[in-house]
Amino acid sequence: MPAFPDVPPTPPQAPPASTLRAALEAALAPGAVLSGDDVTGRDPGWHPDNLRAGLMVRPSSTAEVARVLDVARRHGASVVPQGGRTGLVGGTVSAPGQIILSTERLARIRQIDPDTRVAVVEAGVTLAALQDAAAAHGLEPGIDIAARGSATIGGMISTNAGGMTAHRHGVMRHRVLALEAVLPDGRVLSDLAPVIKAATGPDPRHLLVGAEGTLGIVTAAALRLEPAAPAHATALLALRDLEAVPAALAGVLRPDAGHLHAAELMTARHLAFMQEAHGHSLGPVGQAGGAYLLVALAGPAPAPLQEALEGLAAALYEGGAVVDALIATSGAQAERLWALREDTGAISQRFGGAAGFDVSVPVSALSGYIRAVDAGLAAVEPGLGAFVFGHVADGNLHIVLDRPEPFPEGLRQRIEAAIYGPLGAVGGVFSAEHGIGSKRVGHLMSRGDPVRLAVMAQIKAALDPDGLMNPGKVLPVAGA
Amino acid sequence: MPAFPDVPPTPPQAPPASTLRAALEAALAPGAVLSGDDVTGRDPGWHPDNLRAGLMVRPSSTAEVARVLDVARRHGASVVPQGGRTGLVGGTVSAPGQIILSTERLARIRQIDPDTRVAVVEAGVTLAALQDAAAAHGLEPGIDIAARGSATIGGMISTNAGGMTAHRHGVMRHRVLALEAVLPDGRVLSDLAPVIKAATGPDPRHLLVGAEGTLGIVTAAALRLEPAAPAHATALLALRDLEAVPAALAGVLRPDAGHLHAAELMTARHLAFMQEAHGHSLGPVGQAGGAYLLVALAGPAPAPLQEALEGLAAALYEGGAVVDALIATSGAQAERLWALREDTGAISQRFGGAAGFDVSVPVSALSGYIRAVDAGLAAVEPGLGAFVFGHVADGNLHIVLDRPEPFPEGLRQRIEAAIYGPLGAVGGVFSAEHGIGSKRVGHLMSRGDPVRLAVMAQIKAALDPDGLMNPGKVLPVAGA
Repeated sequence: MPAFPDVPPTPPQAPPASTLRAALEAALAPGAVLSGDDVTGRDPGWHPDNLRAGLMVRPSSTAEVARVLDVARRHGASVVPQGGRTGLVGGTVSAPGQIILSTERLARIRQIDPDTRVAVVEAGVTLAALQDAAAAHGLEPGIDIAARGSATIGGMISTNAGGMTAHRHGVMRHRVLALEAVLPDGRVLSDLAPVIKAATGPDPRHLLVGAEGTLGIVTAAALRLEPAAPAHATALLALRDLEAVPAALAGVLRPDAGHLHAAELMTARHLAFMQEAHGHSLGPVGQAGGAYLLVALAGPAPAPLQEALEGLAAALYEGGAVVDALIATSGAQAERLWALREDTGAISQRFGGAAGFDVSVPVSALSGYIRAVDAGLAAVEPGLGAFVFGHVADGNLHIVLDRPEPFPEGLRQRIEAAIYGPLGAVGGVFSAEHGIGSKRVGHLMSRGDPVRLAVMAQIKAALDPDGLMNPGKVLPVAGA
Repeated sequence: MPAFPDVPPTPPQAPPASTLRAALEAALAPGAVLSGDDVTGRDPGWHPDNLRAGLMVRPSSTAEVARVLDVARRHGASVVPQGGRTGLVGGTVSAPGQIILSTERLARIRQIDPDTRVAVVEAGVTLAALQDAAAAHGLEPGIDIAARGSATIGGMISTNAGGMTAHRHGVMRHRVLALEAVLPDGRVLSDLAPVIKAATGPDPRHLLVGAEGTLGIVTAAALRLEPAAPAHATALLALRDLEAVPAALAGVLRPDAGHLHAAELMTARHLAFMQEAHGHSLGPVGQAGGAYLLVALAGPAPAPLQEALEGLAAALYEGGAVVDALIATSGAQAERLWALREDTGAISQRFGGAAGFDVSVPVSALSGYIRAVDAGLAAVEPGLGAFVFGHVADGNLHIVLDRPEPFPEGLRQRIEAAIYGPLGAVGGVFSAEHGIGSKRVGHLMSRGDPVRLAVMAQIKAALDPDGLMNPGKVLPVAGA
């Protein structure tokens, strides 16, 4: 369920479905084109409207992708690329008359070079599949998100995905070394050099990162890999209050053993809810904190990491930032702690698709921001509140309301003002890692730098003059 | 001295110098405009033609940069941005009729946020100044190059600089979070959110990274910082031969203590030359290797790092990849070892501005590539050879010929074929970290992906239709 009503995609005058289907079938290998129940009977993924077009192509090669775009151009049909359909902002919703381009058959890991630590993979490879392939070489992709089992590399590139290790390894934009993509006019951008450094002028490839399919279809990418640490250790730190977050983060950033792998914030309310939802009471530590930091260290061996966590927790207790701590003594215990953080579905299940937000805030401004949001929501409506959690090592907060959808339009606007309003003063960003999709086009238009938006429009007009690539996403529909 | 003759910049019909100077003086603060000896009497930096325009503006603010571009447009004069003038590929050479835009007065560190680990700095800040400011917070920029004292952040962004820690922290493109820039038409792109994550659509800012001033002037940037390790330890590993490089790199990639900070290759010939040039004989270890790896680990304390290096060297000796090793026991000894690697000027001094190359090669293909280059050069002319060294942890090799300039044109082309020819088979790139400038435009045109080049030209035409931004660099001059 979308958190808020989407801007509907606005397809140009649609060609007759049968004509389009016949043209696609003639252009592609047998079995590549699906329609009717073969499409709508599938799992739509996160958004119920993802499969509404009812016509899906599944190209197996970059050449086939180019042929799909060729058919689309000839018939004036627009194209909606789809990977794992895990996107949270309606970036892959489709409508009748459009062509869904699924990357499910572009699923080869073309190369893993363990010496240079580079993978060349096709767009439809899932993050989990890449993680497994990299692990066989003692490597990891340097990016991790909860939807790892379904989310595809092409989708993660197209939304510039983030996740919990961005504080250390950057976001998807920082993982991409080179891309192969089919441009809207069918030209194939083919520049997959599997090396770390290439200083060869301005890089149009980077326009495709975060473009959500509006400037072309990413078909493959060369990605950086990182040495994987063989051991991890996890601790839940009960913080004095939200104001202790920067000190606690600084305290865990430079462990004596290994390195900080992840540091995830949960407010006290959020952890209390999750303990109840999971029937997993943490005892006194689960009630002692004014906020919680779930910390993972990574390194060569488990014992020194656990010792390091004990030392860091003790030092932070000494300094007053931490009031209690739970250091996981087994992998199973660590997993149960992580489930309290990663199972975000528990909230929306309880609160009927509660509205979610995804913001970036400088760490130093974080507690003030959260308190401003709490006050703002209470002012919108007494009793209205939010669950707050997120990848706090990089300042990324997720905010989920404790009220079911739908909201009347006026209330929705006041809620958005309560959440987005305080961002300006602290240099925050209204969209951190989920993307713009169809859900946040309006926010981008009202909050983005006008010059940046104008340049984006110039580039869109130059590369996709007919507006056939995922219209209605990221950029407003021309003339709409 | 440029390694090979440059493509000269081709300024459009130049306005009279006095008219241009008067217009600039009227637009800028007193003292911002220099001409005559005040320009040509300065240190030109790496390329003797950098200051040839003889007219320089030194804006102190983004608004002043916009006013310079406004004057330039009105008079049809083109603009050459300059930072530290340390570029090695003629990216800042200028000619009479052009305006040199120096960023020397855009030198403020606007903000360092130690909690989010982000710096907001102006384009003219040197890398060394940022390193110092970050060190005060226990942080570092995550990028380091030998020209750190002169090279500016704006220049490093514009050439997508690399350096010795790219294997761990990526290149400049991966360090940039947000940019402020003046576009060719005077619009100011202003998007300096000091946060790690922003998923807000395709990012035109990234077109400016690596554009060498051809798409606008970068005036400020938000950059990621990394936790700095307080201790380092250095070892020189004498390798059995070049074929041992991948095994040696894999061996030092995951130390028990700390992490790999840098791993730099020197061929046996290169180290022998440098020992002689510096009058610094390393004794038997300096002659034992078929190639050398200079390795630095970084971590919380020196003793465990040194122990880790001893253990890694012993294990690699056991496995046959290493035949001897020298572990620095003092900071002074480590510095002298690093000077053998970093003083690349010694070669060009001896060989009269010897031609240099800067390539990326997958690590697994490295020894084969170097041997192919050696054989190719010997086939071009008996006795012709090269010094090879570089940031081998990311596959970046620098190759400097052992013959003084100039070469006759035919010989030059055969030498380039010997060096660039073997790249194709291994997926290498002809320009790793120095950029394209005026020196490598021809190579980019003949070796770059034609679709990528066409898209670059489309974007250039859209953003700088009059071709006033650093013409002749990166992209061919329109109509030339």
